[in-house]
Formats: sequence, structure tokens, C-alpha cells
Amino acid sequence: MDDFTVTPYTVEGDVDYDRLLDQFGADRLTDEQLQNFPHPTHRLLRRRVFYAGRDVDRFTAAAARGETVSVVTGRGPSGPMHLGHVYPFYFAKYLQDELGAYVYIPLSDDEKYFSKDLTFDEIHEYTRQNVRDILAVGFDPERTRLVVDTADADVVYPVAAELAKELTPAAVEATYGTPPNVGLGFYPAVQATHLLLPQLVHGRHPTLVPIAVDQDPHVRVCRDIAAKQRHDVEKPAALLSRFLPRLGGGGGKMSTSDDAPGILLSDDRETVREKVQRHAYSGGRDDVDAHREHGGDPTVDVAYQLLAYFFEESDETLDRLAADYRSGELLSGELKAYAADRIADFLEGHQRRRPEGPIADVVEPYRLTEAERARVRPDVFGGESDRE
Amino acid sequence: MDDFTVTPYTVEGDVDYDRLLDQFGADRLTDEQLQNFPHPTHRLLRRRVFYAGRDVDRFTAAAARGETVSVVTGRGPSGPMHLGHVYPFYFAKYLQDELGAYVYIPLSDDEKYFSKDLTFDEIHEYTRQNVRDILAVGFDPERTRLVVDTADADVVYPVAAELAKELTPAAVEATYGTPPNVGLGFYPAVQATHLLLPQLVHGRHPTLVPIAVDQDPHVRVCRDIAAKQRHDVEKPAALLSRFLPRLGGGGGKMSTSDDAPGILLSDDRETVREKVQRHAYSGGRDDVDAHREHGGDPTVDVAYQLLAYFFEESDETLDRLAADYRSGELLSGELKAYAADRIADFLEGHQRRRPEGPIADVVEPYRLTEAERARVRPDVFGGESDRE
Repeated sequence: MDDFTVTPYTVEGDVDYDRLLDQFGADRLTDEQLQNFPHPTHRLLRRRVFYAGRDVDRFTAAAARGETVSVVTGRGPSGPMHLGHVYPFYFAKYLQDELGAYVYIPLSDDEKYFSKDLTFDEIHEYTRQNVRDILAVGFDPERTRLVVDTADADVVYPVAAELAKELTPAAVEATYGTPPNVGLGFYPAVQATHLLLPQLVHGRHPTLVPIAVDQDPHVRVCRDIAAKQRHDVEKPAALLSRFLPRLGGGGGKMSTSDDAPGILLSDDRETVREKVQRHAYSGGRDDVDAHREHGGDPTVDVAYQLLAYFFEESDETLDRLAADYRSGELLSGELKAYAADRIADFLEGHQRRRPEGPIADVVEPYRLTEAERARVRPDVFGGESDRE
Repeated sequence: MDDFTVTPYTVEGDVDYDRLLDQFGADRLTDEQLQNFPHPTHRLLRRRVFYAGRDVDRFTAAAARGETVSVVTGRGPSGPMHLGHVYPFYFAKYLQDELGAYVYIPLSDDEKYFSKDLTFDEIHEYTRQNVRDILAVGFDPERTRLVVDTADADVVYPVAAELAKELTPAAVEATYGTPPNVGLGFYPAVQATHLLLPQLVHGRHPTLVPIAVDQDPHVRVCRDIAAKQRHDVEKPAALLSRFLPRLGGGGGKMSTSDDAPGILLSDDRETVREKVQRHAYSGGRDDVDAHREHGGDPTVDVAYQLLAYFFEESDETLDRLAADYRSGELLSGELKAYAADRIADFLEGHQRRRPEGPIADVVEPYRLTEAERARVRPDVFGGESDRE
């Protein structure tokens, strides 16, 4: 028996990331594979937040040859976004900046409707908020597309229908358990559509899907479908990440529904400081004297882990903080204060870049164009298809 | 044990239409209900081809008050259309002519893809052919809409997603059996969308669904969903028909995949004559002398049944033919020749009205307008919905 559970709908217990790879059958990233990414290698890679993958080499090799590549990383718009949601988008931007990668960002409003107790109106309000946060990352509108399953159903449903034929209810059940409704039973075909869409729009090419490891089953289902070769597409490659630690510690993933609150992308410096000081699980000792004498443990200290995952850019600083913490020179409260300020610095930049104005205007440059849609949509009544 | 099976995917054995109503829980049409339809009552009603229903009175009462009503009758475009496919459309035209009913005609290309061994390209070729046959019926473009599930997915999928949440895999399985793929498992939500679409476009009003009795499970599933009241819609009413007899007889439904061929809408007079003479199951005697002496049985004679179902307009002629057949005066070959000519007359008119020219131009007046789509489609990024 495992003492943790990781599925796309549940993450429970103390996740053993190595055993998870064995369970899922994915490969740990090698040093050599890391070196194939653009330099300087993103800290999420060199610190092994992204720690495993499938078919990563095909992606990096094509990118090294200057060929078309794409990145797909999505969002389920069921609430405000927190720190744990945003780093894959910053990682996608790094790949776009360095490789000219297309970035496709599916927003699965349908899945959230199928799986949560929310109305579509509520989900669409979150969708609009989330879109502003995603665009704050700073994607190139020429090479970035936001796709909302219901709002872009003209393209999404016909492809999903085609892929759905390859998927039995038994296969879905084996991967996800019995779906509570037929919408969620169909949804894996929609998710597969997300992952193949860049190739359907821009032609066959390697796609990388950087996602938290709990979403890996979606990629596996999609890869199985893609392997059936109805479309001229490559199996999407996956880059799998650990979960950004939750403030309360314990190895699960950061969530807005935990006891300890998540840090929202909209939080101001004061709020971040308060959440970190009050809730971040500390690797320090119970009192200052003991800490000074024995030192703290950065490997379980959530403030330190947040810095190490994403929020401290400098490896030297990170090493120094760890050494000082271990030696007892750096107190838990000081480490928390430092981490809170780095997170707040990040958030202030993010919030500054968050686009204002009518959402229709904000999103328009990032939606599929008519020409792009026409490449994917069935041409039932088009001139081309008229043989009578 | 029943000696017949009727589901949306199988019709086998000698159908007992009365026992079927008990199985399905639908109501036999009363004489009074018949009289509530516009006069002169369509022969499909007065001859009880449409012989049962659900909630028919709400529809006829609203129509009598001059209120908005609609009719939904669809087509699964998996092959050329034959006689058995066309009479519901002529019936819908009668309701449109007499009541000003909106007529919505869904073409379920997705269902055919999910359930048949056909590509979408093949299905879409049939879709275009079938659309010409459907429009040959002569619908009013102002009040008629053709909806193709993939080509109109911008409208169909968001509604289907909303309805899919109300439908468990177990409910689908109880009605249809285990679906071979998740597409067909999702499809009942698409079909429910078809039946609710007129109300979503034109506001709450009674909708009548005239269909062959084997399609009743679709209506029941849709009515169950509609009863959950997420949308402001009435449960669609159903009008259930017997199957147009197949040429070979035996009580099943006409099909292009039978041993005995179906009569296609594209057949010319010679072909119709040959198919009827060669294949129509006869209620006559084995030789002319026996027939002259004992007479034939029109109730099992397929040529007679085709006339009675739809192709002979005059009740007097029909009665005379039955009497002459029973008395032995009318021979089986003569009855077949008469039936073949009435069918050919019908088909010649139908074929003459079949629209020519580019399919895009032909279909355009019957597609949902942008304004109609906007009433149904989710307004995720519209100006109205921008609250930030």
C-alpha cells in the first residue's frame, strides 16, 4: 500500500516523487537532458522542480534545429489563481522567449463544470480573472493562443469527437475512476484535443506539456490516442513537476482549499508576509536558543522550499540561505521574512503586468484567428467540400 | 421474454407496437388528441402511423392559441436517405405550414461517427447529400434551422456540456447499454441539446418531436434532463411512429442494410417498380386462381402498407384497394404496380424540388444566424460579461 494518492482529481498524503515515476512509468530527467534546454537553464529545471518527463529529447532536439515546437499548459478556471498555478506559465514563457515556441493555453471550463459544484457563470467569471493573470506572464500574442473549451467549441468539439472514438469508457475508468457524469467521461478526449491542437493548427511538430505530475494521466491518455495515427501528429512530450509545497507543509500540493491558505496572485506584500509568517511550516527549532545551537532544516522548511522552487533566482543566495539556516545563524522568522519579500517582489511585478481594460480587448490578440480555426474545423458546407 | 427488441441502435423481430408502449411508458394517441391537430388531419396521424406520444396536448393547445411552437426531427447522416427516413420531414412541414411551427433539424454526424465504421469525411459527404433531400421537402427558411453537431459545435457543445452534468454513465447504460466509446456515452447530452435548442433560441415554448418509436429513449433522457430545470424550458413532447415496413416484410423497419433493398429517395420510376415487384412481401395467394377465389391480405402486404402509411393520399382509394384485394379482384402484381407508381410519383416531385447549386449557398438560409447563436453561446469574453 502506498501512503499517498496522486490522480488528476486527488493528491493526498506525503508524495514520494520517485515511486510516482515508477507508478506512472515516466522517466527521471538526466543531467544531459537538462543541458539540452536553452541556457541559462531555467531554475525550475536546474533545481529539478521539473524532474521527469516523457519524450523530452524529441522536443529539445527539434528546438535545437530551429524547428517549430510548441508548449501546452492549461488552467482549470475554478477559482482565483495562487502561486502553485503560475510557475508553469513562467516556464512556458521561458521556452517561448528562448525557442520561439508556440504556447497554447487551454482553459477547461467544461471540466470544472463537470467536476465542481459551480455554475458556468461562476466558472466564466474565474476564467476572465485567470486570463488576466495568465497574460500578466507576458506572452507573445503572435505565438500564444488561449483556448476556452466552450467559447472555442467550434474547434474543440469536432476534434474531441474524433478522438473520443478511440477511448472506451473502460479505459477512462481505469485511469480516472468512474466519472460522476458523462461530461467528465468525455473530457479526456477534450484534454487530448488541447494537447494536439498546436499540431492541428501549425502542422506536425513536437509539443511539450509542462505539468504537475498529478496531471500525467491526461498526457498518457492523449499519447495513447495520438499513437493511433488518425491525425498526422506526434505524441506530445511531457515535462512533469513536483507540487509547489503548501504553506502548511506535508508534501501535498498548494491549494486554496487547505487549512493553511494559499498565497493568491492578487495578495499584497502585507498579506504575503502575514500568510508566510503565520502559516509556513518551519524547519527551525522550537526556540531561538535551540535554533542558534542546532540549526534548522531547509529541506522541510516551506519558506525555504518556496524560494528554492521558484522565488529566489540566485543559486548562490539559495545556497547561502541553506547554509546559514543549517548553522543556526539564520532564524526561521528571518528566513520567512526574506521568502515573503521575494514572493511579494514577484507578485508586485506580476500584478503590475496584469492587463486592464475590457476583457474582450485584452484577450482578442490571443484567440485563434479565423484562418487558424478553419484549418481545424470540419469543412462540412465549405466550397471545397462540395462534390455535387 | 419479448420476441422483439427495439432500442435506438437495434430493431429486431416482429414489433408489437402496443407492448412497446407499455415498455416505454408512452400513451396511445386518442381520437380526441388527433382532432386537436390542424385539419385536415395529416394522413400519418389519421392512419395512426404516428400512434402514440408524450405530452402531445400541451403542444396542440399552445398551437391552437397561436403561440410559438416548434418541431424537432433529425437525421443521422450515415448513408443515402430512403423512404423510411423522409416521412417525418413531410409531417414536420405540415405542422410548419399549418401552425407556423419552427422546424429544427439536427444532423448527428458525431453520433454516426461514434457508432458506425465511417470517417467524418464520409459522413460529411452523406450530410451534404441528405441536406439536399431534407430541403427538397420545402421548408420555410425563415422558420427552419439545420444544425450539424460538429459544424455548429459553437452552440451544440456548450449546451451539451451543461446537460451532460445531469447524466450519469449508469443512466446512459441503463437506457442504451454500455457505449463502445466515450463519444457515444456523451451523445445523449448532445441529443438532449437538439431537443431543447428551439426553446434556447426562441424562448420557452412547447416542442414536438415526431420520431420513430425506437428513438423514444432519446426523448425520455432529454425529458428527464429538462425536468431538472437548469434551463427555463419545457419538456419536449414526443409523437411516436411505427416503422415504415421494410420491403421484405416482417414488421421491422426499412433499412438500406436489409437483404431486401430499401427504396432510395434518388430511385427512378423503373428502379422503384423493380424493387417493389421483386422484393415487396406480398399478402396475395400463391397463384392467380387461388387469389381470385380467396383474395389477399392487405394487412401484411407491404405494397399496400406503403400506400397506407404515406404514399396514397386518398382514404377512399385506400379503402377500395383493400376491399378489391381482399375480394381477389385486385391481384398482387397489380397492387404492387399501383404502389410503385404512387411512390415514384412522390419521388419525382421530391427529386424535382431537390435544390441544386453549391451546398454552401443551398444551406445558408437554413443555418443558425449570428444573433441566434449569440442567444445560446456562452458569453465568456463578451462586453456584457466583463465585470472587472
